Amino acid sequence: MNGAESLVRTLLAQGVDTCFTNPGTSEMHFVAALDRIDGMRCVLGLFEGVVTGAADAYYRMARKPASTLLHLGPGLGNGLANLHNARKAHSGIVNIVGEHALPHLVLDAPLTSDIEGIARPVSDWVRTVQSAAEVASAARDAVAAALRPPGQVATLVLPADSAWGEAGQVAPATTAMAATPRTPVADANIDAAARILGDGTPTLILLGGAACFEAALHTAGRIQAKTGCALMSEFYVPRLQRGAGRVNFPRVPYAVDAASAALAPYRNILLIGARDPVSFFAYPDKPGRQAPLGCHVMTVASVGDDLDAALQALADAVGARQTAPASVAQAQRPALPSGPITPEGIAQVVCALLPENAVVIDESVSAGRALGPATAQAAPHDWLTTMGGAIGWGLPAAVGAAIAAPQRKVLALEGDGSAMYTIQALWTMAREGLDVTVLIFANRAYQILLGEYAGVGAGTPGPRAAHMLRLDAPTLDFVALARSMGVEAGRADDLDGLASQLRRGFASSGPYLVEAVL
Amino acid sequence: MNGAESLVRTLLAQGVDTCFTNPGTSEMHFVAALDRIDGMRCVLGLFEGVVTGAADAYYRMARKPASTLLHLGPGLGNGLANLHNARKAHSGIVNIVGEHALPHLVLDAPLTSDIEGIARPVSDWVRTVQSAAEVASAARDAVAAALRPPGQVATLVLPADSAWGEAGQVAPATTAMAATPRTPVADANIDAAARILGDGTPTLILLGGAACFEAALHTAGRIQAKTGCALMSEFYVPRLQRGAGRVNFPRVPYAVDAASAALAPYRNILLIGARDPVSFFAYPDKPGRQAPLGCHVMTVASVGDDLDAALQALADAVGARQTAPASVAQAQRPALPSGPITPEGIAQVVCALLPENAVVIDESVSAGRALGPATAQAAPHDWLTTMGGAIGWGLPAAVGAAIAAPQRKVLALEGDGSAMYTIQALWTMAREGLDVTVLIFANRAYQILLGEYAGVGAGTPGPRAAHMLRLDAPTLDFVALARSMGVEAGRADDLDGLASQLRRGFASSGPYLVEAVL
Repeated sequence: MNGAESLVRTLLAQGVDTCFTNPGTSEMHFVAALDRIDGMRCVLGLFEGVVTGAADAYYRMARKPASTLLHLGPGLGNGLANLHNARKAHSGIVNIVGEHALPHLVLDAPLTSDIEGIARPVSDWVRTVQSAAEVASAARDAVAAALRPPGQVATLVLPADSAWGEAGQVAPATTAMAATPRTPVADANIDAAARILGDGTPTLILLGGAACFEAALHTAGRIQAKTGCALMSEFYVPRLQRGAGRVNFPRVPYAVDAASAALAPYRNILLIGARDPVSFFAYPDKPGRQAPLGCHVMTVASVGDDLDAALQALADAVGARQTAPASVAQAQRPALPSGPITPEGIAQVVCALLPENAVVIDESVSAGRALGPATAQAAPHDWLTTMGGAIGWGLPAAVGAAIAAPQRKVLALEGDGSAMYTIQALWTMAREGLDVTVLIFANRAYQILLGEYAGVGAGTPGPRAAHMLRLDAPTLDFVALARSMGVEAGRADDLDGLASQLRRGFASSGPYLVEAVL
Repeated sequence: MNGAESLVRTLLAQGVDTCFTNPGTSEMHFVAALDRIDGMRCVLGLFEGVVTGAADAYYRMARKPASTLLHLGPGLGNGLANLHNARKAHSGIVNIVGEHALPHLVLDAPLTSDIEGIARPVSDWVRTVQSAAEVASAARDAVAAALRPPGQVATLVLPADSAWGEAGQVAPATTAMAATPRTPVADANIDAAARILGDGTPTLILLGGAACFEAALHTAGRIQAKTGCALMSEFYVPRLQRGAGRVNFPRVPYAVDAASAALAPYRNILLIGARDPVSFFAYPDKPGRQAPLGCHVMTVASVGDDLDAALQALADAVGARQTAPASVAQAQRPALPSGPITPEGIAQVVCALLPENAVVIDESVSAGRALGPATAQAAPHDWLTTMGGAIGWGLPAAVGAAIAAPQRKVLALEGDGSAMYTIQALWTMAREGLDVTVLIFANRAYQILLGEYAGVGAGTPGPRAAHMLRLDAPTLDFVALARSMGVEAGRADDLDGLASQLRRGFASSGPYLVEAVL
């Protein structure tokens, strides 16, 4: 058995059965091993950002890591932005990055680069294999690292000679994939939080990470009902289970003034899987921390802790075991609106038509802000956002979510600007026949930057600045773009058209793109 | 004057007057400064790989650096692969990478990352500005670093508070852009090389870097005529001036066996701006160095040295001052071929139609191998290839070359697979009205990998491997893709069609894409 076969067998034995790939020459033995060994689903991306973004969302939906296959340092570099997002989301990923055969490295061939150096800023764990015999143990360690709570990016660098060399009779690992148990939260934390919730001061429980799953939210809702505290989630959430029948609460707003205003009423903020809220960017003369001055911010449970157990313990401590949650969203599908396309109108249409149990990938940036509040009463769904803020995440994430959850409809909400970073994801959707409806918010600008320009105190964009922030010369034709990569598509110029286009997408079992012209 | 204005004024005073951009919130003050200050041409890319690839080719054609503007670590990450290529090409680039305001960094906001860590593997020089007052001197240092022979990638990290903070009355630098003088080559090297050339043993002069410019090649041709030595260039060349009237010689072949065979006759290899030739990848049981065993390989002049002077000194030393160069290519335009599209047929059509003084960007990978030899007698042209081997370079490079050389036709030879990595470059071509004809070799596969698969000893691809290496399900429609981004396009299914499509592209003054279906 060569090293590449040893790697594939080890990954499979550990439960890693999906590989998002963009291979090159140095990875051909790995490809050959995938060819010979059954069990790994291989999904080709035309660009590495597709590969890594897919792996991020795959983890969030499957709750186990996929592997990636990337070609040397530049291939890893192309995947870097979405690995940054994945790391901030605590998504477990096992990157396999090919490397030249070790004796070839001293020759400094054109593709030679410092792969570990490129990997380190976006990886929690990095190792370069030194021999074929070491591949299996290194791969086991990589999977273990990826599974370490709350989930980590592990990068295993595989030199070509370790792939083609003899690995010996490596016994495949027999352990089924099992994440390291999450750390229980200390009783002292629970007691302190319960005291705060009982003392009558205005208190917010801020939820993040796995505390945004349905069961945890239900427990949080019981605490809210019992104590009168407020609930919010962080603005960015790896996976928020929401919609009809689920506990409903707002996210901390994105805009710094709105966030400060939303948090202003609270004397205490209890963090459960969330972090002390900070603004996304710095602005002159505005604070970076969003909690009001004098507010007591307490970490009850960190994102890698056992958040379910922590919430249950807290519910018990405040006597909410039998309490019904407050603020459960009631199902309500709004009437379909008519007229010109506006962000609010889009939100209503999406809320009215969203399929049961959909997975919503939200990279709608500026134009999608109205969607969160408006869809609280839509059919139950999961809501995933980029966690690292690097755009070009949405379409790849839709690929990964659709592969991890093949029975569910994926709706990708995409800004036109952000869609263009990793537009190649459409081809993978077509190739794999993925059940994804893509909704492009075609405002034909980096609209968020037109707002941020004033926000950072730069005034009003003049002609040269506006030219750098607008995407209207030439206009992008997303319908033609989608079709060129094998994805059927249609354009909507008003809300009636949008509804009929979305219906068409939702009725299809394959990918469909809707360009909504704002 | 704020820091951003200080930066723009300093760059302009140093002669950096072109900025390839993909900005975000943290860069808005820089955008505002560009808005207020005349003189900088700003070229927007929809993806950062477009930005950095354009800057690489811009340097090669303009012989001075452009700046880039990139958004934080992920934006830099997206540009990493083409910065790798630029660094291997010794292209001078001044990257401006925005960063959070320094006090914001400790808050670890979503987009916070180790920017210097991401930059270092692809940069020769990295610095993070610490205050607005320091911006001007840091920018001068960055430009100086970019200009240091043979050209370097300099990355300047600009925190937002250094951009918006008061920089004082910074006196713009008055020095015109001037590269550090290139190191003269020691007489001992020239003497040793001359002795080798005179001793009658089979000797090859291997040329790279600036030794591939017309004047240097002319000198090399005189040495060849006088001494009977052979001339070659490295397989990858940053810029090779060739075609009718110029000294003609082969490149070292890409394929390892062919390269070894081509170098086998020589007892001496004299390197002038070139490196000891090595194979691109390692293959089991094949040597990495391509020179024959026992061959004496001598570095006469390194890529950063004064290669013109070294060649002239060597010509004088061998008594070739008055000798006419051997092997000057005679103009010959072949008759246009007919029939199905083959790599050889494409080469003939391109040779017949190539406009005078064209700039050829070659990322044709496997299908374009026939083009080099076949176009030796075409009209004079410059030939640029990726130097780092990271694909996704060609279309961005065509953007940069067209901006640096607006009076010249740019012909981009692109594999279909490689085109898809940075396809967004087409939009920038349309937006800027660039005089680029793109020729897509649509073989609908990662054809090179189908060959490399056997080359590395992995056998014949089975169905799963072939699925990962073919791009035919679904087929990419490059004509629709181009039009969706505002670039006019046509498809050629036979050689007659190819000739008429290329004529159409060459007759246009704007971008035109031809999809040649192989």
